[in-house]
Amino acid sequence: MTAFSRFTPLATSLPATVPFVGPEAIERQRGTSVRARIGANESGFGPAPSVLRTIGEKAGEIWKYNDPENHALKVALAAHLGLKPDNFVIGEGIDDLLGLIVRLVIEPGMPVVTSLGAYPTFNFHVHGFGGRLVAAPYRDDREDLDALLDLAKREHAPLVYFANPDNPMGSWWDADSIVTFARALPPTTLLILDEAYSETAPEGSIPAADALIDLPNVIRTRTFSKAYGLAGARVGYGIGTAGTVSAFDKIRNHFGMPRLSTEAALAALADQAYLKDVVQRIKAARERIADIARTNGLTPLPSATNFVAIDAGRDGVYARAIVDGLMGHGVFIRMPGVAPLNRCIRVSTGLPADLDLFEQALPQVLEALG
Amino acid sequence: MTAFSRFTPLATSLPATVPFVGPEAIERQRGTSVRARIGANESGFGPAPSVLRTIGEKAGEIWKYNDPENHALKVALAAHLGLKPDNFVIGEGIDDLLGLIVRLVIEPGMPVVTSLGAYPTFNFHVHGFGGRLVAAPYRDDREDLDALLDLAKREHAPLVYFANPDNPMGSWWDADSIVTFARALPPTTLLILDEAYSETAPEGSIPAADALIDLPNVIRTRTFSKAYGLAGARVGYGIGTAGTVSAFDKIRNHFGMPRLSTEAALAALADQAYLKDVVQRIKAARERIADIARTNGLTPLPSATNFVAIDAGRDGVYARAIVDGLMGHGVFIRMPGVAPLNRCIRVSTGLPADLDLFEQALPQVLEALG
Repeated sequence: MTAFSRFTPLATSLPATVPFVGPEAIERQRGTSVRARIGANESGFGPAPSVLRTIGEKAGEIWKYNDPENHALKVALAAHLGLKPDNFVIGEGIDDLLGLIVRLVIEPGMPVVTSLGAYPTFNFHVHGFGGRLVAAPYRDDREDLDALLDLAKREHAPLVYFANPDNPMGSWWDADSIVTFARALPPTTLLILDEAYSETAPEGSIPAADALIDLPNVIRTRTFSKAYGLAGARVGYGIGTAGTVSAFDKIRNHFGMPRLSTEAALAALADQAYLKDVVQRIKAARERIADIARTNGLTPLPSATNFVAIDAGRDGVYARAIVDGLMGHGVFIRMPGVAPLNRCIRVSTGLPADLDLFEQALPQVLEALG
Repeated sequence: MTAFSRFTPLATSLPATVPFVGPEAIERQRGTSVRARIGANESGFGPAPSVLRTIGEKAGEIWKYNDPENHALKVALAAHLGLKPDNFVIGEGIDDLLGLIVRLVIEPGMPVVTSLGAYPTFNFHVHGFGGRLVAAPYRDDREDLDALLDLAKREHAPLVYFANPDNPMGSWWDADSIVTFARALPPTTLLILDEAYSETAPEGSIPAADALIDLPNVIRTRTFSKAYGLAGARVGYGIGTAGTVSAFDKIRNHFGMPRLSTEAALAALADQAYLKDVVQRIKAARERIADIARTNGLTPLPSATNFVAIDAGRDGVYARAIVDGLMGHGVFIRMPGVAPLNRCIRVSTGLPADLDLFEQALPQVLEALG
């Protein structure tokens, strides 16, 4: 393979690894079909029927570029959360926003604080801009707020990533602790507070929408990919001070948002009754996943998300064997990438039929592994 | 507005200007409605009915992330163009790919060669990564291949942007000249050959799909936004050697492509009969726009695209007044941004009803301007 000879030294140094291998790629590699797609924390419950109707109604407008200012969605989000439209930036999923934030803040060699085993796509972006990851271990399967704060101060880090609720463990903090943590950070440290799973979190665990809106060094990220059931639409948003979020306009792909995705997000936001119902179904599915785990002698971890991390009781090799074994039955799940988190497997909530397949396959896989 | 205090010096230095103001923003600013949307080189003819059917059929899968490897679309494009799947990179429109290319190649201060008045979004990305634009003037309303080659050599530039057919002028070169140009560039200069308007170009103006596929320093970019009528879907692609296009995997937003957009692109590619029909309708609309221009004493330029640049015969101030005047009639058009190109207005092809509105409004606007 002959490549252009003059990519930047940074680009040349980067590995071609990807943050996640998709289930379609696994299907192609193994020649098998996914029968239960419960590995990527998507929502098998799907979006609201009202969202699908909207897509049908608006499909004919797909020849038009989307409004590059994303005005309507910002206005709707502002009304929903009691903030102002200029507190929002819209992006092609949180992944897009994470890349833009790293680009705005990180120069090669700068330290970036995260937790050891936290969201790999954030790490991908940090590497992509030459940042130096400094990671605090999880404590009791939770991200360690005290350790993150200490690291940020010690390293004089310009950027900290923290997710609440957490992926891949499903754990969470109370809102007060998070507000205290954010306010204790130096103003020269930007906090990414990733709230991708906020809709499924328990009462008291998500700071009020305006709790941190006075802080220019905080950006909260949210998405329509999880409880709203729109992972394929790629709609994420960031919340911050008007001054901070306006920085995205300097570098973002202004015409990047797909038109039908924005329409879908607007419809999803308007249908809070459906969201409420889905959150109940997600909770029920979490309980069922936990029951299946216990029935098989494994230990489910408490979860504030649309997935359950299950402690398989041994090491990463064993957990990987379970993941691979389940795929042999057409059950697609994932697992954390780093010890000691990787003693767990991670199962997304989904339809009863999906969990039936998981329930049938798991004991067979465990028995085969011995 | 209080912003985070520690964005990179580069980010801090960037202006908050945007490449293009969308028609929706103009509507909000002026309190008027667009009645004829013929300014952004979208396709008012829309995508094929088969594409809209596909969107309806696949909408229910929007809860799933898209295949991050974009396998199916690469395979389909490879079959369509007689290349291999690994000659392709898929992105969220050409705009996304342009940003990624600049990031892969440009470090602050490096020279980047383009034409004076060529695609502003490319310039936006060059500025965004701290590149230094070096521009060759157009010659006879065409990009000047000899001047671009000379500049690239003189500056030892790592990156050159060239569009064929050209936006904003609609002009084009013959395929042989482009192949000669590409092969004359130093191997340390990466050529972006932007072929967004290739589908509407005359016979003999687009190099064969494999004409440059041996060159690691050429990336050709194409899109479903123009003749295929899918601007709102955001699907662009790049063609190059396997080695060169694999570099995108190091930095791209792997889960960035919307699922329905990919489905729409696949369906559009499969319906070449519709494309052929639309291209005929675009040609007819070009002729009608040219007729309208001549009837009003203006001079249409020949066009290989889905728009027509019209020489209004005076300066940029006058052309701007025409653009603004037309918007007062609900007719949204655009114009080149730089002299001497900005003596022109630029009118996209569209449905007869859209051109009727243009035909009615133009003489009134010209008369009011005197």
